[in-house]
Amino acid sequence: MTTESVFIQMMRAIATDPAARGLRDDAAVIELGGESLILTHDMMAEGVHWLQSADPADVAWKLVAVNLSDLAAKGARPLGVLLGFMLGDSDWDRRFAEGLGQVLRQYGVPLLGGDTVSNRGDKRAVGLTAIGAATFRPVPSRGGAQPGDLLCVTGMLGDALAGFELIEAGFDPPPALAAAYNRPVPRIDDGKALAPNVTAMMDVSDGLLIDAERIATASGVAIEIDLAKIPLSDDYRACRGENRDSRLQAASWGDDYQLLFTISADIALPVAATIIGRVGEGSGISLLDAGAALPLPPSLGYQHH
Amino acid sequence: MTTESVFIQMMRAIATDPAARGLRDDAAVIELGGESLILTHDMMAEGVHWLQSADPADVAWKLVAVNLSDLAAKGARPLGVLLGFMLGDSDWDRRFAEGLGQVLRQYGVPLLGGDTVSNRGDKRAVGLTAIGAATFRPVPSRGGAQPGDLLCVTGMLGDALAGFELIEAGFDPPPALAAAYNRPVPRIDDGKALAPNVTAMMDVSDGLLIDAERIATASGVAIEIDLAKIPLSDDYRACRGENRDSRLQAASWGDDYQLLFTISADIALPVAATIIGRVGEGSGISLLDAGAALPLPPSLGYQHH
Repeated sequence: MTTESVFIQMMRAIATDPAARGLRDDAAVIELGGESLILTHDMMAEGVHWLQSADPADVAWKLVAVNLSDLAAKGARPLGVLLGFMLGDSDWDRRFAEGLGQVLRQYGVPLLGGDTVSNRGDKRAVGLTAIGAATFRPVPSRGGAQPGDLLCVTGMLGDALAGFELIEAGFDPPPALAAAYNRPVPRIDDGKALAPNVTAMMDVSDGLLIDAERIATASGVAIEIDLAKIPLSDDYRACRGENRDSRLQAASWGDDYQLLFTISADIALPVAATIIGRVGEGSGISLLDAGAALPLPPSLGYQHH
Repeated sequence: MTTESVFIQMMRAIATDPAARGLRDDAAVIELGGESLILTHDMMAEGVHWLQSADPADVAWKLVAVNLSDLAAKGARPLGVLLGFMLGDSDWDRRFAEGLGQVLRQYGVPLLGGDTVSNRGDKRAVGLTAIGAATFRPVPSRGGAQPGDLLCVTGMLGDALAGFELIEAGFDPPPALAAAYNRPVPRIDDGKALAPNVTAMMDVSDGLLIDAERIATASGVAIEIDLAKIPLSDDYRACRGENRDSRLQAASWGDDYQLLFTISADIALPVAATIIGRVGEGSGISLLDAGAALPLPPSLGYQHH
């Protein structure tokens, strides 16, 4: 067991309140005054979540976007954010503040508060708490997928992977791929439109395959994914091809921040999305490629360990 | 201007929503579904907020307590917390988790979520978001003090200072002084009892004098403080004496987490507290010692700079 998994187990032993959802969901849900409050806190660290060469404005953007993405997965409207910030180089700080202002204006989300500590030469980490209010109840969870449901995903997968690879290798990626990695778009409106219709929903942060497996586990169902259906952008295909390996990588790298959901086959999709699989009886996920079973890759996505 | 004050100015330029209270209050207040939600996020850093030799369980306790203290200053009942944690040495992490469990059980507050990042040898910083619901509205703020009001404080001042000094010097302090520094007590029940009665309220985190000045500024009033009235514990007097310098230090060191409030002179104090001063017309704070005016010390408390 790794340091992180041990710590998360200790936290789960403490987080026994139902609102915490066993620390196994995208966000906590607490009931107050006839509303369902949605709360999430995600951190990012230099060298792990961003390259040392990254534009600090992009770091701020992504920090807000990944937290708003968790709210989107609950169909919530954002109410505000609180920032936990490590001070350091003043140019870096100023540029971060610019990006923070941009992303909050873009999504109309107020900065409510926060705190700073001095960094003193260490690698930085930044954290953000986002709070939202559910627009539909019951609030979607990862449980609830039913045999017969379709598995669907919004947008394209793998663009962030392609953008990251090119940036890290010193290339200047196509703008859409760079943006997918640096400035992901939280699917807030999609989340609101989907919440009343889905049986399960989450955002794809760690990789489609591992996230689909989480829905399967939480729902007590099996999920079959058709690799040929994984939605890939033209830019992605141009840069990385669309063979089986490329598709598997797009399905297991993460950082996509698309919404992954299950929905009854009888309901018309309320947002633009791609049907990529089907829910069945059983457990775990399985892969099909052009109708034939395909073994699962050794890694389904980013594991917290 | 320091790095921190520049950054906070940039944040204030972004945080224009009234709920943020100009980032000049203990917590943000947002209205939702007939309730007033109270939100705060405070961080602690190794070498700044805790000694390297500190028991990690005490660090966890204090991190929760200082955030709950901000909720107490708003008369709020805590609804839950989210943790932002830097992983490191696994013994440290385990001991931190134990302290976290203890303090959350002590105050009946659920852990709702959070995130971890790996530390990789750097000095650690930890952050916590606390959310609460107001038990009385309008929610107390730092503004609202009226000429003629009394200035009061709960509990004793300076015990955390005395505990810190002795621990840092390698002594074993009296248990109450060590506890005041390591395991401060958020005055949650006092805050609830005071909220309907006070004209202004905050918690004393940076020092009585600087915090009283903040109330004076926010309220547009003058506040006169009688140094002889500063409440000092028997342990404090035994360790540090009670002469003028000792009293001034107790009034400007901070880390007390007592509630400082103004209240009409016509109202009986609803909690145990000491009357230490009086609100008048004008601006700023002034000091009296045994009836005679005393110049303000060069530092009124901990400045965020």
